[in-house]
Amino acid sequence: MQMAAQRILIIGGVAAGPKVAARARRLLPDAEITVIDKGRYISYAGCGMPFYIDDQVGHFRELFSTGYGLPRDAEYFRSERGINFRTRTEALFIDRARKEVLVRDLETGRQSRLGYDQLVLTIGAESVMPRIEGTDFAGVFKFRDPGDAQTVKEYLEKRDVQEVVVVGAGFIGIELAGALANLKLLTTVIEFQEQILPLTLDPDMARLLEQRLAAAHGIEFRTGERVIRLEGDEQGRVCRVVTDRGGYDAELVIMAVGVRPNVGLAREAGLAIGETGAILIDEYCRTSDPDIYACGDCVETTHRLTGQKVYAPFASAANRQGRVVADNLAGRRSVYRGVLGTAVLQAGSFNAGRTGLTEEQARRLGYEVVTSIVPQRDRTHYHPGSGMVILKIIADRASGRLLGVQGIGPGEVVKRIDVAAAVLHFGGMVNDLIEMDLGYAPPFNMPIDPLQHAANALVNKLDGIVETISADELKAKLDADEDFVLLDVRLEKETRHRKIDDPRRILVTLGELRRRVHEIPRDKEIITICDIGVRSYEAYRLLRGAGFAKVKSVEGGMRTWPYGPASMF
Amino acid sequence: MQMAAQRILIIGGVAAGPKVAARARRLLPDAEITVIDKGRYISYAGCGMPFYIDDQVGHFRELFSTGYGLPRDAEYFRSERGINFRTRTEALFIDRARKEVLVRDLETGRQSRLGYDQLVLTIGAESVMPRIEGTDFAGVFKFRDPGDAQTVKEYLEKRDVQEVVVVGAGFIGIELAGALANLKLLTTVIEFQEQILPLTLDPDMARLLEQRLAAAHGIEFRTGERVIRLEGDEQGRVCRVVTDRGGYDAELVIMAVGVRPNVGLAREAGLAIGETGAILIDEYCRTSDPDIYACGDCVETTHRLTGQKVYAPFASAANRQGRVVADNLAGRRSVYRGVLGTAVLQAGSFNAGRTGLTEEQARRLGYEVVTSIVPQRDRTHYHPGSGMVILKIIADRASGRLLGVQGIGPGEVVKRIDVAAAVLHFGGMVNDLIEMDLGYAPPFNMPIDPLQHAANALVNKLDGIVETISADELKAKLDADEDFVLLDVRLEKETRHRKIDDPRRILVTLGELRRRVHEIPRDKEIITICDIGVRSYEAYRLLRGAGFAKVKSVEGGMRTWPYGPASMF
Repeated sequence: MQMAAQRILIIGGVAAGPKVAARARRLLPDAEITVIDKGRYISYAGCGMPFYIDDQVGHFRELFSTGYGLPRDAEYFRSERGINFRTRTEALFIDRARKEVLVRDLETGRQSRLGYDQLVLTIGAESVMPRIEGTDFAGVFKFRDPGDAQTVKEYLEKRDVQEVVVVGAGFIGIELAGALANLKLLTTVIEFQEQILPLTLDPDMARLLEQRLAAAHGIEFRTGERVIRLEGDEQGRVCRVVTDRGGYDAELVIMAVGVRPNVGLAREAGLAIGETGAILIDEYCRTSDPDIYACGDCVETTHRLTGQKVYAPFASAANRQGRVVADNLAGRRSVYRGVLGTAVLQAGSFNAGRTGLTEEQARRLGYEVVTSIVPQRDRTHYHPGSGMVILKIIADRASGRLLGVQGIGPGEVVKRIDVAAAVLHFGGMVNDLIEMDLGYAPPFNMPIDPLQHAANALVNKLDGIVETISADELKAKLDADEDFVLLDVRLEKETRHRKIDDPRRILVTLGELRRRVHEIPRDKEIITICDIGVRSYEAYRLLRGAGFAKVKSVEGGMRTWPYGPASMF
Repeated sequence: MQMAAQRILIIGGVAAGPKVAARARRLLPDAEITVIDKGRYISYAGCGMPFYIDDQVGHFRELFSTGYGLPRDAEYFRSERGINFRTRTEALFIDRARKEVLVRDLETGRQSRLGYDQLVLTIGAESVMPRIEGTDFAGVFKFRDPGDAQTVKEYLEKRDVQEVVVVGAGFIGIELAGALANLKLLTTVIEFQEQILPLTLDPDMARLLEQRLAAAHGIEFRTGERVIRLEGDEQGRVCRVVTDRGGYDAELVIMAVGVRPNVGLAREAGLAIGETGAILIDEYCRTSDPDIYACGDCVETTHRLTGQKVYAPFASAANRQGRVVADNLAGRRSVYRGVLGTAVLQAGSFNAGRTGLTEEQARRLGYEVVTSIVPQRDRTHYHPGSGMVILKIIADRASGRLLGVQGIGPGEVVKRIDVAAAVLHFGGMVNDLIEMDLGYAPPFNMPIDPLQHAANALVNKLDGIVETISADELKAKLDADEDFVLLDVRLEKETRHRKIDDPRRILVTLGELRRRVHEIPRDKEIITICDIGVRSYEAYRLLRGAGFAKVKSVEGGMRTWPYGPASMF
């Protein structure tokens, strides 16, 4: 008697779904593998869509093609992978008792039932559309699937769009703003929270990135501002965004306030939903029904540093989970351990990223946090293409354990984020960063990697070799009319375009300071400042060595000063 | 009674020396710190010199300047750092009993003695000049210090140089060859060993890099060939390089056969020299005399994966050691744990790197080694600027422990080397690579990082999900006239410019294979091949699932085929 083939049914045809199907096919040559998706577009590169808007991705079809040029359509999955792919097919209900899914063919309206031995939910997430007046005007878009991307692109090409508003300064909002600014559109980003990238960066780093994006790309940011309604013209086209603090003309509005996991199907089937509102899965990516797996943007996962459940809808997690699901479908016990909070993005000419905990998260978890912020070049300054990065390291003061790293800049930020993620993966210390044998050659790095430089700076603080003050703390001291000396130790030419204009500032270059140390008042607090915080540290040590009791160095120097004109890195 | 100031004397003014001096100054404000160097050039960016040759570094002075534009000369060290810097001052003898160094001023010839409380040797390394006839002809250069770089550059500018020979295919040789080829010079590299980069890459990876450098930049490589003599013309200028296998015209010859630590001063002072021939130091970077430290290119260090002593003259190690020496000078017990064998370089449009053990090293140490070689794009294929990388992972079969990673390609190799170095730092497993939460966005990565892809491929091999064959093994089978089917599953258009021309090859695209599986002979061994090894793996699984018993997939596909025309990535 021949065994009936194992029937695997996958609901959801983007990212995680195709990944599960492909590996399951390789592991289970005899299984019947079916993927259904209600959309027209399957297995698309969702993360590439912002780059299609500003023509970095030249053709729409590239978002759907393999590296060797074939379209990743149903036919491709059938012929190359032996996977039965049904598009425009909506799952209506999961009948767990009978192990069947009720589906509807969206072309014909016909309903049918698909049986399964194992079911996999990769039903993704959807854009949140805020309940405000006017979102139905023409020219108002969400940005979730390739249909959205194409519609936005066509709208931009057909209409004479000059002013654009992006509502939401999360990942998609910021990437889109970069793309729209690249198209020379007047771009305004409105964010309800007090900072851009509120889920990713600490406020200090977010402000520095905001300052640079504004200066380099002319993007206007309105944080802490709530959109109340959209207004349209007589043709029914959007023309204005009204907020609680003003109004902005716009011929195009993109709503990018966030995504929400699709859980309706799972909830109606009685599957457990987690505390984050996404589908609950165990370490094998199994739902509360052992014959139903789930992965991708519809599930919640575990933050490996906190043990807490988090919702982390990232393509990288979806792909790793997909592999785990396929392994388990094939009887190979494989586990997915969760995320470290790694997230990276590019907007305009700037890169940004984070791994681990933010300072805020770490404080909320009760850590006594110590941080360092260090601007550095990503490679030797004499090598063409070198660019600045600003890195922030967050560590636990008591143990010296690394908790998180953030980075922004036109330079190579993401390499440092990945290295930090590796250190976090092993629960490493700040000292591990310092001791690691990273690669150095002038096109790639400084002899001491910026990440190691930042780690050294943090250890110097911990060891009491330097006392620092942040840009914000300095601002507060200035605003409070405190009596101190702001000792700028840069070269005169460096101060011409960018300095803190205040009578308390005096300029004595580091090279002159030894000779002129008697000119520095001994009865006042001295705050040293330079360009990136290296010479001000040197000056700090010099003054302390010369007997000055109350000295502080401005961490990160003028490059981390978010007030006034931005350093163009 | 006032204590006499601590006197720190540093012999050697490049890389490690200035680093020690700078941090010692910050930690010890009252110390007398003196650096002496016999050369004219101090604190220069030696690693940047190849990039000065092809004008990537625009000005000679940039190799000596700070990021903010000041020259790093003796005056800079005096005024900014409070360090007494004496150039053109040679150390002749270390009198350990009296704690004095006999020095000679090379300008005046005058000798004097400098006392020290602690002495630091950062006396570096020198180029090995092979003892062959003709190295004294004009146009024959070594490439060790900025004087060499400037002389080479001037010679190129003044003479009508067309043909250049670089002797030695180590780091400097390969970087220089890339620079010379960038200048459109006919460049030949002659290497005594059977491969380029013999200390860095395994032969398989070295050959792939060699093939690309030859194809993309027209560099001619002669490996396994020994230079016997140089010949000159009537003006005393070099005109020909004669080897044991032929001769090469050349108007410029650069000898880059390696470096040798400077240990004379240490040996004459009775300090212990290690088994590698470099100065022996302990984990505090202390020599056999507790008042004498040493670091940089003159010392040997420990390979952290093997515990063995190695000679690793890299700027990154020198800088890390310099910090450790300064800490110890200041009474802060700080240790340097050694290297992981990390080394990266850029030549022409190609990057290359290694961390950990090579396959050869691992075998010699007794590991039962398993490897994977995977070509992948460094970011999503649809993103502009994506480039290929070929990664090789070396692991221990028994434990699954990661032992080493190598990478080459025009794409972002070095990020992956650094991440792998972090994993090696923690003694991580191949599975750690797979589970790490690395950053993904289209400008930076694939959803599954190439390193993770390579780790997956290795685990698939370990798990028996695929059996692979290397390019070399395939070549041997072809040459031995074995009877098998070479099943090329690429698209027809992919095979047009690059295929293995052999009657045993048949072309059935992966998309057709399911339908045409009956055409594949069941009585023969089937070797599947594609472009990068992904579709051939898919075909392997398909055939195995269809009952074929003897199937193998060519690891890395045509991209790792070093015979015949190179894939231009």
